[in-house]
Amino acid sequence: MLLTDFSFVDPFVGQMKGVIAGITPWVLVIDLCHEIPPQNLIIAALFLDNSRGFFPKETIFVAVVDPGVGTQRRPILLRIDEQYFIGPDNGILFPITVGKRPLEAVQIEHPQYRLPHVSDTFHGRDIFAPAAAHLARGASMESFGRKVSALVPLLLPKPRHEADLMTGEVIHIDRFGNAWTNITLGSLEEIGWWIQKATLRIRVKNYDLVGMSESYAPTGIEKPIAVINSFELVEIAWPGGSAAEKMGIAKGTQVVIHGL
Amino acid sequence: MLLTDFSFVDPFVGQMKGVIAGITPWVLVIDLCHEIPPQNLIIAALFLDNSRGFFPKETIFVAVVDPGVGTQRRPILLRIDEQYFIGPDNGILFPITVGKRPLEAVQIEHPQYRLPHVSDTFHGRDIFAPAAAHLARGASMESFGRKVSALVPLLLPKPRHEADLMTGEVIHIDRFGNAWTNITLGSLEEIGWWIQKATLRIRVKNYDLVGMSESYAPTGIEKPIAVINSFELVEIAWPGGSAAEKMGIAKGTQVVIHGL
Amino acid sequence: MLLTDFSFVDPFVGQMKGVIAGITPWVLVIDLCHEIPPQNLIIAALFLDNSRGFFPKETIFVAVVDPGVGTQRRPILLRIDEQYFIGPDNGILFPITVGKRPLEAVQIEHPQYRLPHVSDTFHGRDIFAPAAAHLARGASMESFGRKVSALVPLLLPKPRHEADLMTGEVIHIDRFGNAWTNITLGSLEEIGWWIQKATLRIRVKNYDLVGMSESYAPTGIEKPIAVINSFELVEIAWPGGSAAEKMGIAKGTQVVIHGL
Repeated sequence: MLLTDFSFVDPFVGQMKGVIAGITPWVLVIDLCHEIPPQNLIIAALFLDNSRGFFPKETIFVAVVDPGVGTQRRPILLRIDEQYFIGPDNGILFPITVGKRPLEAVQIEHPQYRLPHVSDTFHGRDIFAPAAAHLARGASMESFGRKVSALVPLLLPKPRHEADLMTGEVIHIDRFGNAWTNITLGSLEEIGWWIQKATLRIRVKNYDLVGMSESYAPTGIEKPIAVINSFELVEIAWPGGSAAEKMGIAKGTQVVIHGL
Repeated sequence: MLLTDFSFVDPFVGQMKGVIAGITPWVLVIDLCHEIPPQNLIIAALFLDNSRGFFPKETIFVAVVDPGVGTQRRPILLRIDEQYFIGPDNGILFPITVGKRPLEAVQIEHPQYRLPHVSDTFHGRDIFAPAAAHLARGASMESFGRKVSALVPLLLPKPRHEADLMTGEVIHIDRFGNAWTNITLGSLEEIGWWIQKATLRIRVKNYDLVGMSESYAPTGIEKPIAVINSFELVEIAWPGGSAAEKMGIAKGTQVVIHGL
Repeated sequence: MLLTDFSFVDPFVGQMKGVIAGITPWVLVIDLCHEIPPQNLIIAALFLDNSRGFFPKETIFVAVVDPGVGTQRRPILLRIDEQYFIGPDNGILFPITVGKRPLEAVQIEHPQYRLPHVSDTFHGRDIFAPAAAHLARGASMESFGRKVSALVPLLLPKPRHEADLMTGEVIHIDRFGNAWTNITLGSLEEIGWWIQKATLRIRVKNYDLVGMSESYAPTGIEKPIAVINSFELVEIAWPGGSAAEKMGIAKGTQVVIHGL
């Protein structure tokens, strides 16, 4: 499984697949997403964390959003819940390790598991892709390099909860113009607001929405809705249209939920 | 075969493939196209209908353009010409069933062929992808649910033919800026105009084109051409450039053909 | 391996894969890149030449950037360094043949290796994809058609070297806004400038850069760098940002290197 910010505009992803095909042509390679905004570790970590549950056990996830390529940041291989994760130690892999102690991780350093020539600018092709292929081929985790006891942390932006207000922000605009916030279903359940889901008031831009909708279906009235999306995040959507365009929402736009 | 309006910007398609890999990792999954304009059933139906002939027998097509996700519209599995088609009953599958009676179709309702938790917003991942994988794995059509006798219809925009005028419109601008119209090769053959293809006059914007060209090859003169494209549709193209940009054509632009 | 300018917006690439699946469903098909700027043979040839080394022996490369589709340009199959290359004879395959004599190439003309109906506008699907599949299935090169002794040439834009100046230009802006030039590592090595890499002066727009950097890592100072990228080309980058946007660089922008 490949997750990068390389897009399909350049041959980067194709070259990674060529390298994998040279080592383990029988392995199924799935693209999770390559359109992570350039160097946006937070969106990459979010996509990875929310997608891994939909992939089978023994899946090898290769996550390469790597602004520090060519510097001393460590290439990491880790194992969590019977799946493997490969990527740079720059925070991208941190969120999935939360609560998963002890950390089962090693540094990818054995030269035999890299391409013979490693460039300074494209470790996705030269280090991470061949490491994944050698792992799929049967190399043991220990053979990649020394143990790693802690990863570089990455803090996901959390909503602020004070009294009857939960204040979050938009972290992603998806293909349909739906605005994903950093307010999770879990955080609403935790403080007991989820049972009032039909009466919660959500304020975003100049709009006051009442209640969480069950689907994107048009209501006949032209207005936005709030919904729990398939990532279990509060999302602002405009049935039949783009909430981002119609409401002028962008990444960072504030979203406030009023509990009772 | 997957056809959606999810694009590659988000991890939606990747998650569908993860779900399929968890059930039938040995199945070849091909992306037909994921850049259907959001919620555009007509383009999706057109791409599906014009592409199925290039895929082998027993192919399973999963077509998810689904503005009504989470509402009561039925998930459908149907069989036509030894191929299978899966998608919501919102019209997307209707055009391929025209002239194919009796309809061999069932509703996808058996909970065993879905993910354990079905979200309200992403049935592509939670219902349609697992249904396709279980079908590929050998589940019989009947085991998915009760028979369906009719689908929600979808009317493709048809050109208007009056006396010596055929009036159509642009329905798609492709990657090269070529403008696809809703005038089919078949409709020109039917009324006997195809034998005059060298002398037909085509009017679009302020341009008068004469005759159908045989290829996109530049003529040495900077001007647009009309051609029958690989979808067997009349198409306006600008050799070496973008007809849409150079001529100001957009979706909906009128195209009129004069027969003699 | 597929390389085209078809993008993923239309079902062209999906139809090619459907055709291949109908002939050789067991073959691994890898997308190198489909976002070649429309009809840009030079970028296609560059991507192909710089990527083939990362693919295994016996790989079949299908390169379709084909403004002359439907005209008399020949469809070509050639073999170089134990890999196969398929595409139109319009220059796209020429650069990889330089220095590879005698040319081992044939014209694809045997009707048995095409689709039964060949359109005038989409030979990628009707000629090139089935040819690749039949080759993968075991057809011998000779069975495709008569021998070809020379290809239509394509001249890549070369930098100009005079005295202590090497003058090149930007040929591609990648996903990150990095500007790739046509100045190769090889051309700097050839004239002995590479040993001075730390002191070379690079002028682009109003910026004077000193030395080639080892990585994209931010220096703490907001300024552009020059680096040898993973294609072994001199590249102008802006650590943490887009050089193209920040510096106003576009395709064709001049880049001048001062040797001592």
